[in-house]
Order: sequence, then structure tokens, then C-alpha cells
Amino acid sequence: MSMLERRRTAWAYLSRVAEGPCAPLLQLIESVGVLEAARAVRGWDLPEVLRRRTAARRHLDTAERDLELVGRMGGRLVTPEDNDWPAWRMLAFGRARAEGRPERGDGSPRDREFAAPLALWTLGSAPLSELTERAVAVVGTRAPSPYGEHAAGEIVGGLAGRGWTIVSGAALGVDGAAHRAALASGGRTIAVLACGIDQAYPAQHARLLSDIAREGLVVSEYPPGVTPARHRFLTRNRLVAALSDAVVVVEAGRRSGARNTAGWARRLSRPSLAVPGSIASVTSVGCHRMIRDGEARLVTSADDVIAEAGPLTLPVTAELAIARPTDELRGDSLAVYDALPAVGSRGPRELSEASGVALVDVRSVLPQLETAGFVGRDEVGWFRMLSH
Amino acid sequence: MSMLERRRTAWAYLSRVAEGPCAPLLQLIESVGVLEAARAVRGWDLPEVLRRRTAARRHLDTAERDLELVGRMGGRLVTPEDNDWPAWRMLAFGRARAEGRPERGDGSPRDREFAAPLALWTLGSAPLSELTERAVAVVGTRAPSPYGEHAAGEIVGGLAGRGWTIVSGAALGVDGAAHRAALASGGRTIAVLACGIDQAYPAQHARLLSDIAREGLVVSEYPPGVTPARHRFLTRNRLVAALSDAVVVVEAGRRSGARNTAGWARRLSRPSLAVPGSIASVTSVGCHRMIRDGEARLVTSADDVIAEAGPLTLPVTAELAIARPTDELRGDSLAVYDALPAVGSRGPRELSEASGVALVDVRSVLPQLETAGFVGRDEVGWFRMLSH
Repeated sequence: MSMLERRRTAWAYLSRVAEGPCAPLLQLIESVGVLEAARAVRGWDLPEVLRRRTAARRHLDTAERDLELVGRMGGRLVTPEDNDWPAWRMLAFGRARAEGRPERGDGSPRDREFAAPLALWTLGSAPLSELTERAVAVVGTRAPSPYGEHAAGEIVGGLAGRGWTIVSGAALGVDGAAHRAALASGGRTIAVLACGIDQAYPAQHARLLSDIAREGLVVSEYPPGVTPARHRFLTRNRLVAALSDAVVVVEAGRRSGARNTAGWARRLSRPSLAVPGSIASVTSVGCHRMIRDGEARLVTSADDVIAEAGPLTLPVTAELAIARPTDELRGDSLAVYDALPAVGSRGPRELSEASGVALVDVRSVLPQLETAGFVGRDEVGWFRMLSH
Repeated sequence: MSMLERRRTAWAYLSRVAEGPCAPLLQLIESVGVLEAARAVRGWDLPEVLRRRTAARRHLDTAERDLELVGRMGGRLVTPEDNDWPAWRMLAFGRARAEGRPERGDGSPRDREFAAPLALWTLGSAPLSELTERAVAVVGTRAPSPYGEHAAGEIVGGLAGRGWTIVSGAALGVDGAAHRAALASGGRTIAVLACGIDQAYPAQHARLLSDIAREGLVVSEYPPGVTPARHRFLTRNRLVAALSDAVVVVEAGRRSGARNTAGWARRLSRPSLAVPGSIASVTSVGCHRMIRDGEARLVTSADDVIAEAGPLTLPVTAELAIARPTDELRGDSLAVYDALPAVGSRGPRELSEASGVALVDVRSVLPQLETAGFVGRDEVGWFRMLSH
């Protein structure tokens, strides 16, 4: 077995034994590497918090079999070491170290939740990082009205036609309508599952899921065989938001999971958007409430969504790639960089106010500045890299 | 002619010769009284700004005839000297003095617009001040969809059923639907016209207007005989907003006069609200844009509207009426009063933040504190009366 294979097998093993998200495990891998982390789990050579998180499954060493099964299905395991790992998408989770910090890194559910996935099992041939470069999540109730299905189709059609990938949860209702509309427009779409990618769930969407795998990607942080469960729908929602530039809720009842996804979007500093509808429709109640309570911005079209999600590729990118000194920064990049304090961090909204650059542009400039090494990100927001 | 009659005749004369709103005339009346102001206009004994504003019509001394005509129709002229003048509704315009201040009191249209009406010609027997105690403006496009008509009916029905007066502009479409729904619910309604109250405009609403005059009020700042004109629709919109606790736009196209009314609401510190609808409907485009741009809050029901418009009668009222010393203030009134600076003024939003009292409650407490003599209002906001 090559070193590459050994490492991937270690990721697969850890993905099986510690149910994601698992911040303490991310922290361990960051400090000792994935091979040593896998050895430590196998050998029970672990801090208490990780013993608790791995006790039930550490004997399940099905890694090679899982990789083989998924390979036969035409899928693979994408790890943070792979080129197509959507690394900058995960920045919003902060660093594993920050997540696992002693005072709160006690493995409490709340702390566990807000962490990047360990690795992602995917079905399909498209590279994940490329597919998520410009991506919008379109989600909603499992029982939409004809209006909701139509609205999902309209907005998705406009987004897909302009090159945006549609991310959703493959659920019945709005999710399914969004995936189908993306496929029908010849666009790309990603289904993020709350179960293993070998599970056809919901069963009515078996055909749809195989279409998605052919044209886009089916993604899960759970290894093959894992069945859907309530808590997995919630952590799945976090991934839907994390892989997207914005979350659009098309229709949602008073208590809809879509609202949970929108909540993740806000926590991850992505725009949370909602489509209005008739005041007489129960399937618009959740959207209207989100808009009314300031939890989502109203959108009526793909154009509205794009205005919020923002273009990811600004002319400044090429420039950043070749020139590091800040005196070569121009336009929005310079304004945003200059708005960063000499010491400490600032959030995008503050940076927008301080720089006069529109929030949507601030949000697209920052990851580019990060990639180019000008800025870093912590829990509070963004900071200047000391070298500049 | 009694002194009372002489004074009312002076108001009627001024209402005819200076087209409202006319801040310099308000200022003149405030400083010399209405009789002397009328004499000054007749005698052309005026500052330049008022000469310009009265030159065309000062010979039109039709006051007695106007009062007689309107009296025969069952109407009258309500002046700021009358008990049923909605005085505190007009506070938001600021004082005439502030409006007519030298550096901007040059009679420019912008300056003219933002002033209280001189007096109001009314048709109907209900007292204006009582009718506007709890009032919501419901406005919208002249060509609503069936959905818009239905939504207007639903919201107006809920408001009227709970004792709120419906204010609108008697135009075709949403305005008419709002008036009709108010009448159908046994509620009270006010039609604010952009022409004299003797003009049945639009002609299709002649019957509706006479129904409104019987059950509520038809109101105009223009004397009898004045015909509708474009600029009068805009100043009329300002009165619709001024007589209401909030403005609800039910349906509006891209360029709708309803948006102008909502703009007045914001300028007058009233909540500006809009009803969502289908993203495919051209008659909801204006509402969606207002919500999206933060110009209006989304509302879906009478309950939503009432939550924004706020109850005007708080338990604290009775207490305020009998007790002046601030140490007898309690609850929200005390918190808001305490949030006022020792020197200078503060707006409702700042007061809400400083006091922790909801904005909607701050807005209803302040006029009560004003009535009770605890606070005053200037251009910036509200201030402590020195005696306390």
C-alpha cells in the first residue's frame, strides 16, 4: 500500500469511528497528522474527550472495504489533503484549534456541531472544489405548493444558466425540485446527504440521486452504510450552507428544516435569503417570518440571489496571485485590507462599513486576500497577516 | 359675525389663497395669529417669500361662500384651534418655526412639502382627532391583482375589526378595496383627497365617497372646487401618512405612488410596511423591492401590522393625566424619560436602544409624555421639558 493509500485509509477509518463533526479529532489530526491520529485512536491512546467520542466504534476498521465499495460505485473519499478539497469554504468554521480550545472543547454537542467535516465521501466525477466555486444552496419544505415548485424552478434555472452550482439536500419537495431544475437546465448540482452515499434516501429519489451523481456530485461526511437520523439532518444542513455562497429558502412552513439551514448560513457568514409568497399560503409562513425577523433577505429572482451571493472571481485575483506586497493591492482589495485594524480582527460587516466597499464585495475579496496570504481569519473575523 | 366665525373665516381664506403645505404661512400664523395673518395677506403686507406664495390667489376671498357650501354638504373646516384637530399627529412635521428657518425657508418646493396642513376640510360627522387615534393607512396600486384585492380585504378586515381606522386615498384599486373592506367590516375609514371635498374623484368612486362621508370622514387640505393635480397627489400622500400610525402597501408596481406614501411614513417616523406576494406578479414588484431595500417591513396579517403600529393607549395614560412629577412615572414611560439626555434631543430609535423599551412602545409613549408635558419635540428628536 502506497503512502497515499495508507493516508487515505487512515482518513476513512477516522471517518467511520468518530461521527462528524468532531472538532477534537480535527485538532488531533492538525497537531500529529492523520496517520498518527488513526494509530492513537486504534491504540486508545487518547485524551478523555476523544475516548468518549470514539469508544463505540474504534473497533470498526472497515476503511479498506469502504474505500473499495465507494470506488466500485464510482465515488471516492475527498480529504483535506486532496487538491479538490474545498479548503476555503471551510475557513468559516475557524481553525480546529480554535474550535477545540480547552475552555469549550469538552465535546459538548454545541461545540461539536460547529466544525468542518473530517473528509467527504463523494459520488460523481466532478471535482468538488471546482463545483463549489460558485454555488448556491436552494432548500425548502418537503411539501411545497405548486407556486413553491415553480419558484424553485425559476430561480434555479436562472442560477444554473449562469454557471452557478445548485446545492441541496435531496429531500422530497423543494430540494428535489431544485436538483431537477438544475439538471434540466444543463447545470451542475450537489446533493448533500444525511446518510452514506450508498443509501438511496429518500427512496423516491433513487433515480434522481443517480442522475445527480452522473452530472454533479452526491456528498456526505458519513461513510457508506450510515443510515439517516435526525441529528444527521441538522449537521447535513450545516454542510449544505458551508458548501455554498448563499442559502435560498424557497418555501418553508412555520417549523421547517430549511430555516435551520439558513441559520447555519448566517453562522457561517453566508447570506441567508428567502422567497416571498402569498400571505394566505402556509408554505410561505416560514419565509415571511425569516424576512420579517431579519433572519433572511427577500429575493425574487436569480439576479437578486447573485447580487447577494456575489461574484467570486474579481479582476483583482490575477494580480493577487503574482504580487504579495500590499502596495500593489488595488480597488476593493486595498480598501478592505486598509480597513483591517493593525491589531485584532474585524467581521465583514464592520469592514464593509469602514471601507465603503459593499458587503457582498467584501465577502468575496476576503477569501482572495486570505488565499494570497494577506489576511487570516479567526473566530472574531479577519486580521492582517503580520508579514505585511 | 362672532369672533369664532371671524377666525374660521380667516383660516378658510388662507386655505384658499396659499396652496398647502405652506411653511412660511404656518410660521406667520404662529407668530401673529390667524386674523392678523389673513389681514397681512389681504393687505399684501408680507415678506417676499409669502408674497410669491399668495400673489396668484390673494384676491380670491371666497371664504364665507366655501364655509357655507361645505356646511350645506354636511362638512366643516377643522383648524388647529379646534378640539378635534389631530395636533399630536402633526408633531412629526416639527414646528412651523423650524420649517421656516431662514437658511432654508425660501419657499423651495422641498421645504414647502414637509409641513403640516394649514387646516383640513372634512365631510362627515366623526371627530377627526378621535378617528385618527388608532389609524393605519392601507394603500397600493390602482390596478391590483385579485390577490392584492383579497390581501387588502383580509388585512383591513382584521384591523377594522379591532377598532383601527383605515386611512387611504380613495383611488381606484387598492385604496378603494381598503375603504370598502373597512365599511364592510363595520369599521371606520378616512379618505384623504388630492382635490376639494366637493369633487367626486375618481368619478367611479362617487358612491363610495358618500358612503365614507357617512361612516367616517372625507378629508382634504384643499378648499372646495380645487381639482386634482399631480403635485396634489404627492402632498396628499404625505397627509395619508401623517394621519396614520403606519402605512401598509398592499400591492405596488415598480413605480407606484404607494411607495411615495411609504416614503412619507418613514420621513414622519411611522412604520412603513409592505405585503409580499408572488415573485411572478408585477403588482408585487414594488412591495418586494421596498422590503428588500429595507424601505418597508414585511407584514402578512393585521396582527403583524398592529405589532408595528403599536397600541396607542397604554395603561400609563391615566397616570400621566393626573401626575406630573417624574417620580410618579412608571414602566416604559419612566424608562423612556430616563433615557432622554439632560441636554439635547434624541430620536425614538436611540431612546429605544438606551432604554431597552421596544421601538414600537417608545413611539407610543413619547406622544403621551408630550401631552402630559414631560417632553417636547424638535427637529432632532425628543427632549426633556426643563420644568421636570
